[in-house]
Amino acid sequence: MAKSEFELIDWIRGHGGAGRPEVLVGIGDDMAVLQPGAGKLMITTDMLLEGVHFDLAKTTLEAVGYKTMACSLSDCAAMASEPIAAVVAVALPNTMSMAEAESLHTGLQRAAIAYRCPLVGGDTTSWNHPLAVNVTMLSRTVDHEPVLRSGAKAGDAIFVTGELGGSLAGRHMEFEPRVAEALQLVKIVDIHAMIDISDGLSIDLDHICQESGVGAVIDVEAIPASAAAKKSADPLGAALHDGEDFELLFCVGANEEYKLQADWAKKSAVKLTRIGEVVVKKQDKRVFLRYNDGRIEPCPIKGWQHFTN
Amino acid sequence: MAKSEFELIDWIRGHGGAGRPEVLVGIGDDMAVLQPGAGKLMITTDMLLEGVHFDLAKTTLEAVGYKTMACSLSDCAAMASEPIAAVVAVALPNTMSMAEAESLHTGLQRAAIAYRCPLVGGDTTSWNHPLAVNVTMLSRTVDHEPVLRSGAKAGDAIFVTGELGGSLAGRHMEFEPRVAEALQLVKIVDIHAMIDISDGLSIDLDHICQESGVGAVIDVEAIPASAAAKKSADPLGAALHDGEDFELLFCVGANEEYKLQADWAKKSAVKLTRIGEVVVKKQDKRVFLRYNDGRIEPCPIKGWQHFTN
Repeated sequence: MAKSEFELIDWIRGHGGAGRPEVLVGIGDDMAVLQPGAGKLMITTDMLLEGVHFDLAKTTLEAVGYKTMACSLSDCAAMASEPIAAVVAVALPNTMSMAEAESLHTGLQRAAIAYRCPLVGGDTTSWNHPLAVNVTMLSRTVDHEPVLRSGAKAGDAIFVTGELGGSLAGRHMEFEPRVAEALQLVKIVDIHAMIDISDGLSIDLDHICQESGVGAVIDVEAIPASAAAKKSADPLGAALHDGEDFELLFCVGANEEYKLQADWAKKSAVKLTRIGEVVVKKQDKRVFLRYNDGRIEPCPIKGWQHFTN
Repeated sequence: MAKSEFELIDWIRGHGGAGRPEVLVGIGDDMAVLQPGAGKLMITTDMLLEGVHFDLAKTTLEAVGYKTMACSLSDCAAMASEPIAAVVAVALPNTMSMAEAESLHTGLQRAAIAYRCPLVGGDTTSWNHPLAVNVTMLSRTVDHEPVLRSGAKAGDAIFVTGELGGSLAGRHMEFEPRVAEALQLVKIVDIHAMIDISDGLSIDLDHICQESGVGAVIDVEAIPASAAAKKSADPLGAALHDGEDFELLFCVGANEEYKLQADWAKKSAVKLTRIGEVVVKKQDKRVFLRYNDGRIEPCPIKGWQHFTN
């Protein structure tokens, strides 16, 4: 089945995605050429590894392709930016057939088309080891500034989209990056800080606190645990630490939180939940849990983390 | 030795390269934020694999880092564009120490500083398999159009920089991407088509011919074989097919070739050699060799190619 690298590239070139006016030269030269316009440009890169981020015994190559693109699309959402193009580099196992490589690409392409983010270039290599897929994505902002992690202020309300925890039961391969939701949010209110929940609510909220120099208190009862999290032995732990939710976690000025909730209900079917507030930083502990009985305790910060041997 | 992913990221963040005015937000948010200006923007991605592109028994991790950046810098040169920023994704073997990971990064950083192309973001993962390193690089053009592979015309003179072949003897880990040379070339003459020689002279010239719809004749005696190629059993074969030379191969109108040669000698110490001409395409054979006795024969097209099991 397996053919040459150049045949595979020709196949990919013939199955290119929906074009965008920003793309002047796509696959086939030394570099793709873009004309992104005069706004701000953003870039992110994500490497997904067989046996770490996906298990080919439990998922298809098509789904792996989709997920790799979706992880980067979720980063674009976290900046409230519009994806414009992606490049992909793959290390294919030598045992992989041309049909399997095409299946991987079909999944990449499914996300590229759904989110109008064409694949404009790539690098195809092979070796006697498991599959590694890397996507690098460009996005831009037009009418507003990119939303960073560093703008949270004491007094802000903290919100999340969707539901959290239990993603490994299946959602982590088929989630829908919140690109449209993020672009909608910045039209309604001024988002002070935002991140997508990839490592887990506790770690990712800690990232916002660290970058902003603030603390945060979460109402335990308010956290929107998913059905999968509720089925687990520790639903709160799952919602706080499982990771790979790819929901948006963000902070809004206290004066705008009611406007946000009122306007959001009219414009989106995606659940939006207020889970707590930004507070003044207390020493090195940054994230706290508030229970129904009024107790406030430091939140354990843990979740999906590599390179911890 | 090995510490956490976040500690490594902090280390990298603290060892960031020479900044550029285009970089507004570097490592530490969901995406880096750039302001590349209104010109054309280019993107390329390169994946380097242990056991395929480098052998850790024969080279250092520092050299691997340098090479990964240098491959992408060479793509920027091939478009006659100016590198502005790079992101890096690594799959680290679980056995790798923090000191080794830092050594890899030191090599990436050496290239970033030498070519003024800061690392603005990345993704660090680990697994029980060999090292994979991926660099994605952005570049731009300011005063001229990007040089594509597709603009060669019958009658053009074909040139290469430097010397070819035998790169595996060492040069493939420590080559100097021809970024400054490419930017100099487009100031002197109109370059019709250009590519960097990564797969080998025969394949890469075939790429130009295919994209431009032309043929090419190379004078065998004119090909500048390197000292390493001359030591091999087949110097001509090494210069034609070894690959990983990372020299520039380009086409210039016949009316400008003398101006190029005269001006180049005044401005650069890098060797420039006229190796043949672009001709009208003949059926599916595109590249021909011309011998001293006048014989012209089709050139075998072969070189460094993956995924050929």
